[in-house]
Formats: sequence, C-alpha cells, structure tokens
Amino acid sequence: MTTLQQIPESLQWNGETLNILDQTKLPLEIVYIEATSLQDVREAIVKLQVRGAPAIGLAAAYGLYLGVRDIETDKIEEFREQSRRFADELISARPTAVNLAWAVEKLLQLSSDAQSVAEAKFIIMEEAIKLHLADEATCKEIGENALTLLHDGAAVLTHCNAGSIATSRYGTALAPLHLAKEKGWEISAFATETRPVFQGARLTSWELKQSGIPVTLLTDNMVGYLLQNKKVDAIIVGADRITANGDTANKIGTLQLAILANYYQIPFYVAAPLSTIDISIETGKEIVIEQRDRSEVTNIGDLQIAPDGIDVLNPAFDVTPNELITAIITENGIVTSNYRETFLRWGNEE
Amino acid sequence: MTTLQQIPESLQWNGETLNILDQTKLPLEIVYIEATSLQDVREAIVKLQVRGAPAIGLAAAYGLYLGVRDIETDKIEEFREQSRRFADELISARPTAVNLAWAVEKLLQLSSDAQSVAEAKFIIMEEAIKLHLADEATCKEIGENALTLLHDGAAVLTHCNAGSIATSRYGTALAPLHLAKEKGWEISAFATETRPVFQGARLTSWELKQSGIPVTLLTDNMVGYLLQNKKVDAIIVGADRITANGDTANKIGTLQLAILANYYQIPFYVAAPLSTIDISIETGKEIVIEQRDRSEVTNIGDLQIAPDGIDVLNPAFDVTPNELITAIITENGIVTSNYRETFLRWGNEE
Repeated sequence: MTTLQQIPESLQWNGETLNILDQTKLPLEIVYIEATSLQDVREAIVKLQVRGAPAIGLAAAYGLYLGVRDIETDKIEEFREQSRRFADELISARPTAVNLAWAVEKLLQLSSDAQSVAEAKFIIMEEAIKLHLADEATCKEIGENALTLLHDGAAVLTHCNAGSIATSRYGTALAPLHLAKEKGWEISAFATETRPVFQGARLTSWELKQSGIPVTLLTDNMVGYLLQNKKVDAIIVGADRITANGDTANKIGTLQLAILANYYQIPFYVAAPLSTIDISIETGKEIVIEQRDRSEVTNIGDLQIAPDGIDVLNPAFDVTPNELITAIITENGIVTSNYRETFLRWGNEE
Repeated sequence: MTTLQQIPESLQWNGETLNILDQTKLPLEIVYIEATSLQDVREAIVKLQVRGAPAIGLAAAYGLYLGVRDIETDKIEEFREQSRRFADELISARPTAVNLAWAVEKLLQLSSDAQSVAEAKFIIMEEAIKLHLADEATCKEIGENALTLLHDGAAVLTHCNAGSIATSRYGTALAPLHLAKEKGWEISAFATETRPVFQGARLTSWELKQSGIPVTLLTDNMVGYLLQNKKVDAIIVGADRITANGDTANKIGTLQLAILANYYQIPFYVAAPLSTIDISIETGKEIVIEQRDRSEVTNIGDLQIAPDGIDVLNPAFDVTPNELITAIITENGIVTSNYRETFLRWGNEE
C-alpha cells in the first residue's frame, strides 16, 4: 500500500542549505535544488519550482535566514535595514501570496528585540524551523476539520495543487483526502489539470496517486460536464489570500469552479491556514492580481500553440466572492458566514 | 488591411481530388492534404485534420463521392448496397456530428431514384458541390442574423473554432465577427484556448488575426475572471447537434460557458445551420457523448504532463440545456424559445 509518507517533502532544511523539491520537473523526475542563498530561494519561488502558498512562506523564511546569515556587520541597526531590504526582495517574488509576506514579516518582528546581530540571526533561523514544524500540525488540523464535512465513499474535485508538496506535509485542500485514506475510507478525487502551468495534471494527480487515492484527471473545461454527469460530493480548493469578508484569491480558475458548484448545488470549500487570512484588506476587490508571462499560455514546452503576436490574458489568480463559498476551513475551525467577526475574534485570541 | 479573403479555405474540390486544409498543422504551417479516396477523407476526419461540423459534413459528402466513384458494377442494387456501407463508414468517423450523417444521407437519398450507376455517381458528385456552395450562403445568413444581436464596439467571447475554416467560409459563431469587420465595425473577440486540442489557441486566434479582428487568447479556466473583470457583450458558440427541445451538444467546455454567462447575465448564443438540428431526438439526454483518447489530456506533442496510469476523462462534447441558451441563430432566423415548434415548422417548410 502506498501512503502519504511516500510523497517527497517540498522542503528539507539541513542546517546549512535548503533543499527544494523542483516541482517544475514533476511528475517525471524527482529532483531537489540546493539553495544556499536568498537569491537561490527567490529564484525558485519566481520560477514556481517551489509553489503553494504555505510552502512559499516556509521557503521564504529559510531564504531570509540564508540572506541575513551572511550580513557582515555587528551594528544591529545596519543589520535591521539590510534584513528589511532582504524581506522586501523576497516579498516581491510573489506579491499575491500573503503567506510569504506573513512569514518574513513575522521573522523580522520576532528578531526585532534582539540585542546583537548574532542573536537576531539565531532567532530568524530558529523561528523559520518552528514555522516549518507548525505548518505540518496546522495542515493536519485543517484536514481533520475538513474531514467532518466529508464521508466514507466521498468523491472530491480539487483544483491546482493545495497538497502535501504545497506545504510542509498533508497540504490544505488535499489534507482531508490524505487523512481519509489513512483512516481507511474509500475516498476518490477528480483533479482539474489547471492551465497554464498544469499543477493539477503534473502535481495533484501524481501526489494522490503516490498516496494510493484513486484520481481522475480532467481539463479545466470539463467541470460542467463532470458535475452534470458524475457524482461529486464537494469541491475543495486552497487559497492564496483571504480578505476580511471571506473573499478568496486562489489559482486562476477557482472562481468559475465556485460558480459551477453553486449552479449544481455542490458544496464549495476553501481550506487554508489562518496565515492566509489578510484582515487588513476588507474585500477581494482590493486584491491586485499578478499577471504572468504570456508565453505560459502561447507555448507549452517547446511547442508553440498560438500564432505570433496575439494578445493574451494570464492572471495568476482570481477572486471568489464570499457568497459563492460554502465554508472556509482553517486549523481553528470551519466558518460559513460572518467571516469578519470570526477572523477578528481569532486574531484577538492569538 | 487583412480580410476574410485571406483565410485559406477548409476544402478545395478540383473535380478529381479533395484538398483538405490540415488544421492540425495550424497556426504554424498551412498545408493541404490531397484526399483521393473515401479512406483518405475518413482518416482526415478522425484525425481532426478537417473539423467543424459543417466542414466535416462537406468533406464526408466529397468522401462519399470518392468512394462510389470507384465502385465497379453496373447493377444499381449492388451499387446502392455498397454506397450504404460507405455512408456508414463515414458516419462512424465522428458519431456525434450530425451534419456528417445529414450530408451523406442526403446524397444517398437524392441519388436513390437514379436509373443507372453512372447517373447515381453523377448526382452524388453534383449534390456534394451544391452542398459546398450552399454552406457558404448559409453561413453568411447566420452571420447576418447574428449581427442583429450585436453592435459596433461589441466584444464577443467564443469557444473552440466555429469559424471560416470549420465551414466552407465565414463560419457560424465567427460569421458575425467577419461580417462586422467587413462593415467596418470595431469588433473584438476573446478566444478560449479549448483544451485538449487547442482549437481556440491554434485556429480561432489565428483565423481572427488573419481577418484583422483584435483577439485575446485565454485559457479555459480564465472565463470566470474575464466575465467578472472585463466587458464582454455576448458569448457565441457553434453546435455539433441540436435536439428538438433546443438542447445543444458542442465542444467540451461549452456547457460551463453557458452557466457562467447565466451567472453574469451575459447573452449566450448558439449559431448553427439547420442541418445541425436533429429533430428526431427530443432532448440532449439522449445524445451519446464520444469519449476520445486519453493521450490528448495526458500528453501535449512530445511532452507528458501527467503521471503514467492515471484515470482520465476526455469527452469530446458536452450538452448545454436549452434553458441556458439565450437564442439559437440559424440561416432561417433567431429562435429564443419554443424550439420544437419552430424547428418543426421550418422542417415542414423545406
């Protein structure tokens, strides 16, 4: 029997370097990149070699440490200014992914009381490792909460890859599937291929297959057909940023899944850690959507599929309004309405 | 200025052979296949080298002639039996495309009173040419009717390629765009790439660019984002089969476009010739959906994008229920409700 344990980890920290699973090589090759500097980590984030909001946050945390480790000063003020610049450099790599900013800001803040440069460096390293360990626990809690909304025999549709390799382990949207499998449930999945980068085809179908969960791959335009003709009990997706009112930015294509779920009256769930919630933004209308390179749409590998000089849309994300979301599932629990109140209460409890 | 006239024709009949524009080579190469036999034509249909319901029907009509031309008998009964077998062979190439069956059945029927084999052969050839010429007139009428639903400055989203190269000329869904351009309107288009075969990326964006119509390409999962964020005045698609109640089978992905149009209250139009209407079938539930090869989803050119041994969905079409269709646009006029009554009346008028 295959299990979750057989899925290669997204990130391996060995005290000196960060080994990053190169997700652009999956599913055909399992290759790790040895990141020895902030620039190595930033490049891996930009190239989507590490992807998934939680994994990006963790990679950036280690990236910040790799940057500050080599700052050659004893002056704490100078160190702080340089750390700030490093943090901004990392944040600019994926501006929509709030976990990235959340992780590096948290490390800067935790190290702000340090009396010496050595102490600040140590705190940043230690807290990066703590974030990494905490993420696994968080994902497991999200999965356990999500599992209460499913049942033995359930069929779940997911989009992109909010899986084990998008986090430290378990994933967010895929956590309940991995946990259901561990419990011995008969659970099955449908995975949209997720153009333009094919995270569903390359990553989710591979990850679920590694875990022994039956998975059926479909193109993004087959979802209407699927919901009209097959039994699907729920759609579960991850999130890159959730605003105070519950509006959710996630991989392009998520919005229309929510509209289709709504039309066919299938529950539409967002599974994400609290670190994805950006209470400072009121609604999804304020989220700036990152536009990616046109070549992702016009070319696939060496193959050009569109004529030269054509106009192209390539938004990385879209925003699903809260009224299309049945529930947001976090490590703290499940929220189905009054998002702002609950998020604020949880923020105050922290 | 570029114009419709610069778009290579889908089919060229030279009296002896049928030259078929190999649409699998577009947009990078403009290559014609010289079909000299029924088998050549059938193969081109199966391989999607000729595609688009009307063009398939016309190709099959010439294909039937290429088949019967070489029947070596003077016995009319024997000729009819062999012609029937040829017709069935052609129909089996794309079972969902009703125009194919419609075209070859029509030729058989028209030749059924022939007194001699020579006469029957002549009738089949002559009627194939007539169908070809009639299709261009039909497409132009569809376009003129559709144009009454648009306006100068309109932006139209289309799916797959129901264009000039899918017919003899003008297309069905794209006919109003070509005609608007000829009238000097400022018209613009959005084209979904249309996985798995990329007809939108390869064909529609190329065809519209050839005609000088501004076109923006997007992946199939960006439609929700597009309708939420940009001005789109209408969605227009073609059809492979329309049942008596107006339910419409068309390229996979059409159904969810109709649901998205419904959600965003944008008109959703089906543009198709009367030959697409199959009055013998009451509702879309009775349409058998052709499942195509899994490799179209798991591989793109030489690139494998999914792990080995994964389950795959690959329906060629989906069925949009009539309640999601704002209007069906034919050469006879525009129908918005009571489809069955109107279709029956038109059938009786023929």
